[in-house]
Amino acid sequence: MTTARSVIREVAPHLADLSADVLFGDVWERPGLSKRDRSLITVAALIALYRSDQLPGHLRRALDNGVTKDEISEIITHMAFYSGWPTAATAARLAKQVFDQG
Amino acid sequence: MTTARSVIREVAPHLADLSADVLFGDVWERPGLSKRDRSLITVAALIALYRSDQLPGHLRRALDNGVTKDEISEIITHMAFYSGWPTAATAARLAKQVFDQG
Amino acid sequence: MTTARSVIREVAPHLADLSADVLFGDVWERPGLSKRDRSLITVAALIALYRSDQLPGHLRRALDNGVTKDEISEIITHMAFYSGWPTAATAARLAKQVFDQG
Amino acid sequence: MTTARSVIREVAPHLADLSADVLFGDVWERPGLSKRDRSLITVAALIALYRSDQLPGHLRRALDNGVTKDEISEIITHMAFYSGWPTAATAARLAKQVFDQG
Amino acid sequence: MTTARSVIREVAPHLADLSADVLFGDVWERPGLSKRDRSLITVAALIALYRSDQLPGHLRRALDNGVTKDEISEIITHMAFYSGWPTAATAARLAKQVFDQG
Amino acid sequence: MTTARSVIREVAPHLADLSADVLFGDVWERPGLSKRDRSLITVAALIALYRSDQLPGHLRRALDNGVTKDEISEIITHMAFYSGWPTAATAARLAKQVFDQG
Repeated sequence: MTTARSVIREVAPHLADLSADVLFGDVWERPGLSKRDRSLITVAALIALYRSDQLPGHLRRALDNGVTKDEISEIITHMAFYSGWPTAATAARLAKQVFDQG
Repeated sequence: MTTARSVIREVAPHLADLSADVLFGDVWERPGLSKRDRSLITVAALIALYRSDQLPGHLRRALDNGVTKDEISEIITHMAFYSGWPTAATAARLAKQVFDQG
Repeated sequence: MTTARSVIREVAPHLADLSADVLFGDVWERPGLSKRDRSLITVAALIALYRSDQLPGHLRRALDNGVTKDEISEIITHMAFYSGWPTAATAARLAKQVFDQG
Repeated sequence: MTTARSVIREVAPHLADLSADVLFGDVWERPGLSKRDRSLITVAALIALYRSDQLPGHLRRALDNGVTKDEISEIITHMAFYSGWPTAATAARLAKQVFDQG
Repeated sequence: MTTARSVIREVAPHLADLSADVLFGDVWERPGLSKRDRSLITVAALIALYRSDQLPGHLRRALDNGVTKDEISEIITHMAFYSGWPTAATAARLAKQVFDQG
Repeated sequence: MTTARSVIREVAPHLADLSADVLFGDVWERPGLSKRDRSLITVAALIALYRSDQLPGHLRRALDNGVTKDEISEIITHMAFYSGWPTAATAARLAKQVFDQG
């Protein structure tokens, strides 16, 4: 259990249940989109929304789901045009941290 | 030329040039991500950012790039969890308009 | 069934199920916050996020849940300082439409 | 009195007083920034935040404060890079409406 | 005087005056909404807008104004649906820090 | 080369090329708006969008482009009304760091 998840479990246990049962137990498992596609759109949304706390974890998940580092680089470049250069710059900084970790 | 593009051409001609030469002429054509993948992330970002003016055009482009209506439905459902129910509700309304048009 | 709900049902039926079962069937019914308090925070969030499509419906729900028109006026004024004057101005416009309808 | 202001006056009269006394009566009148500079930053912020309801009025105010149409075109182009192409596209559409009116 | 307030006082003294005289001296003191209700909507807006710098201080203020930790937990869970899971996750992290401090 | 730029160069080299060639090589150099005006609108947008990672660098650039510290103070105060007090508070904190450095 990641630190972020354990914090949600401690502070808002019902939200932790909903995360486990609905978001990860149901939505992420639906066959209508592959895990790789779900990672693509999640990473894109987190970059666009400047969600710096959650992006590193979902970048790692994206790598696990088969998105390559080069594809993440392309997503960051593409997003610069749709949510602005600053969102891409922060995403690049966080991606470097994730890439450097392994 | 779509109406939106012709308006940009009229009001901000240099931006129209940059759209044609850099965004669509270069970034969208880069081989690092397929057109379908680029449509997935663009649609996801526009839903998350509540960009109601631009989402319909990119939903049509997504359909042209091979994203199915069922996949758009899954993207909307997935985004509800990452950018909130209201962003998904507006996306559903706009998707229905696009789907009903053909 | 409101129009917005029927559109979600048509375009993204699983999201409609989640709305009925989880958001309205579970979260809104939890006793930890009164319905009035839930309306206060939902209206505040929709104003702050400039969610113009969803605010009217939740203003009507707030009135049903016991929030008064004068309290909605205070929320709008308070939000001007936390999310900016433009978000308050749009909220005032939409509140007037809701108030004028009955 | 513009329609937007009269609506705020009707729905949230204290906010209307704060707008008249504090925002327009004090802040906009402070000599630390010229009216033209205040219009530049207000228009930039409204474009970046996708505040479609308030941008037209502030584009007209910017023209009154000495910002030229060509400068508005440059602001829109510049903002495309900082808040994303969609914010610039909507700004261009609204600027065309304002420019066409006079 | 909190650190945040003293910084505003140093960098933007007129804004500090407006905070003291208008926001806290007038708006927060208006009888149209209780202090508890104002804390509910302020916390909701700060969660929804991902305002990580300001949320801890307003969580402490909410506790002072009679909002319980369990109610904050419910607000965070409720907001997950209106502004997205990431905004709730960051709010949970910050709430834990505030709760652990006392 | 700043750290932020070198990170973008490493993670997303094509984005770094676009920054150098298009954003800074072309857009910032266009004569339609002075460098000072471009700094005014960039700083305003970054404050409004709560882009904490990028604001310090652009505050330094603004000082280099002839925007004074007193003018930055006025921009922050002005923005409080258009994007909300929290965006101004974070901008004040970051401006103090930049001002204290030189």
